[in-house]
Amino acid sequence: MIRMFEARLKVYSSATTDFLRDYMESRNDIPQQLRSSMLYSLMAGGKRLRPALCMASCEMLGKERVNALPFAAALEMIHTYSLIHDDLPAMDNDDFRRGKPSNHKAFGEAMAILAGDALLNTAFELASFNCKTVDDIKAMQYLAKAAGASGMIAGQVMDIDAENEVYPSPDPSESLVMIHEKKTGELLTVGIMCGAIIAGADEQTLTALKRFGLKFGLLFQITDDILDAVGDFKSLGKTIGKDNATSKLTYVSLYGVDEARERASAIAEDAKRTLGELPYDTSFFSGLMDFTLSRTW
Amino acid sequence: MIRMFEARLKVYSSATTDFLRDYMESRNDIPQQLRSSMLYSLMAGGKRLRPALCMASCEMLGKERVNALPFAAALEMIHTYSLIHDDLPAMDNDDFRRGKPSNHKAFGEAMAILAGDALLNTAFELASFNCKTVDDIKAMQYLAKAAGASGMIAGQVMDIDAENEVYPSPDPSESLVMIHEKKTGELLTVGIMCGAIIAGADEQTLTALKRFGLKFGLLFQITDDILDAVGDFKSLGKTIGKDNATSKLTYVSLYGVDEARERASAIAEDAKRTLGELPYDTSFFSGLMDFTLSRTW
Repeated sequence: MIRMFEARLKVYSSATTDFLRDYMESRNDIPQQLRSSMLYSLMAGGKRLRPALCMASCEMLGKERVNALPFAAALEMIHTYSLIHDDLPAMDNDDFRRGKPSNHKAFGEAMAILAGDALLNTAFELASFNCKTVDDIKAMQYLAKAAGASGMIAGQVMDIDAENEVYPSPDPSESLVMIHEKKTGELLTVGIMCGAIIAGADEQTLTALKRFGLKFGLLFQITDDILDAVGDFKSLGKTIGKDNATSKLTYVSLYGVDEARERASAIAEDAKRTLGELPYDTSFFSGLMDFTLSRTW
Repeated sequence: MIRMFEARLKVYSSATTDFLRDYMESRNDIPQQLRSSMLYSLMAGGKRLRPALCMASCEMLGKERVNALPFAAALEMIHTYSLIHDDLPAMDNDDFRRGKPSNHKAFGEAMAILAGDALLNTAFELASFNCKTVDDIKAMQYLAKAAGASGMIAGQVMDIDAENEVYPSPDPSESLVMIHEKKTGELLTVGIMCGAIIAGADEQTLTALKRFGLKFGLLFQITDDILDAVGDFKSLGKTIGKDNATSKLTYVSLYGVDEARERASAIAEDAKRTLGELPYDTSFFSGLMDFTLSRTW
C-alpha cells in the first residue's frame, strides 16, 4: 500500500515540479533577481504534498489530473511563500529550510519579503488565468479563504501568540488543535477539496473530504512534532529541537512522544473510516495515512 | 472642473471607506489583533484614488458604481499591503505613514508582515467571491497581473535596485519611467481598466484607457517627486526630503523642480488628448489631471 502510494506521490510531485519550473521559466516578464529568489524556494526540494492531494482528489473523481495542475501549483506557491515569510528574522528567524539557507539568508530580507509577496500574488494570477468554469471560480474562492486572514494566516498569528504564551483556548490541547487546523490543516484540506471541486464534486463529497482533510492535517502536525523531537537535521533539513528550546506548545510537550504516537495512530484509523464513506477509490488517501504515520521527513 | 472632480472623488472615497469598514467588521472570523492591524492601515486616511478610478470608469461606461465596489476595495487592500511591506525596516524603513506610526511601529514587525500578507490575500478573496461573469474573471486576471511579480512587485524590486544604483536602463530618464510605470503606474491603470471591464468595455476602449492610465501614473509620480522636494511633513504625513537624503533617482533630482513641473503639465495635456479619443463623458478623468497638477497631498 505504502509503495503504491509513494509511486503515485512521485508522479504528482514530478508533474508539479515540471509545471512550476516551466511556468516560472515562461515568466521572463519578472525581474531576473526576483524570479531567481522565487525559484530558489520553489525548487528547494519540497515534497509537493498539497499539489499531490489536489491532483489525487481530482483523479479520484474521474477527471484527469492535468485539470487540477494549475491549482495544484498555485497551492505550492502559497505554501512556499508562507515558509519564506515564516523564516524571516521578525518571524521564526530560521536560517535553514530543507537543508539550504532560507530565502532571506540567500537573497537578503527585502528580496525575501518581495519573493513571498510575489509567490502569493502569482498563485492567484495562475489560478485566475485558469478559471474557465463555475467550478474553477469556486475552487479559487476556497483556496483564497483557506490561505487567508481567517485560514492559514490566522494560524500564523495564533502561532506567534502562543510563543508569547497567549493561547486561543484555556485548554492547551484545544489550543493546539485550533492553531494547527488553521496553520496547516486548512491549506492541506483545501488542496483535497479544490481537486474535487474542479472535478465537479457534490456538496456531500466535499463535506466528507473536508472532514478527512482536517483529520489528516492533525495527523500531519502530530507526526511533525514527533519528528522535531526525535528526528535529526540530516533527514529534516531544518533546525531540530527548536520547539523544545523555545518551550513551545506541541503534541510532544503536551503528551510525550509515546502518547503522541498513540494519538497519531488513532487519528489515522479515524480518518480512514471517513474515507470509507466515499463511493470512490480512496487508496491514495489511505496510503497517505500509513505513509504519514511512518514518515521520516 | 476641479471642484466637481473633488466632489465626485469624495463620494467614491466615502463609498470605499464604508465598504472596507463594513467588510472588515463582518470578518469576525479573522483573529482580533490581525484584523486591528489590517484596519489600522486601511483606515489611515488614504485618498482612495485607485478605488475612485475604478468606480469612475465603471460609471463612465454606464454601469452603476456598486458593481465595481468590491474590486475597488480589493485594489485599495493591495495598495495598502504594499505600503505596509514597503515601510518595513528591511525595505524603506519608514516610521511614519500618512502622519501616523507605520504599521510595524504600531503592531510590531511580525504582525505587519502578516497584515500585509492578509490584505493581499483578502483582496483576492473579495474579488473571487464577487466573480459572477466572464468580465469579472477578466478584471481579476488584470488585477492579479498588475499587482504581481511583473507589475507592482517588479517595480518594488527595481526601486530597491535603484537605491543600490543598479538601474533597468543605462538612460536615467528611461529607468525612471520604467520603475514608476511598474511601481505605481500599473496598479493605477488597472484600476481604471477593471472598472471598465466590469462595465463590459470593448478592447478599443481598454487600449485607450490603458494609455491614459500610464500617462496619469507618470504624472502622479512626477508630482509626487515634486511634493517630496518642496512639500512639508504636515500636509504629506510622511518623512520629507527622504529622496534627497538617499540621493535617489527622482524627476526632481534628474531635471530640477521647474523642468519637472513643465513636464508634468505637458503630460497632463497629452493625457487629456487621449481621453478625447473616448466616446464617453471623461470629465472626471480630465478633472483628475488638473487636480493632480495642483495637488498638495
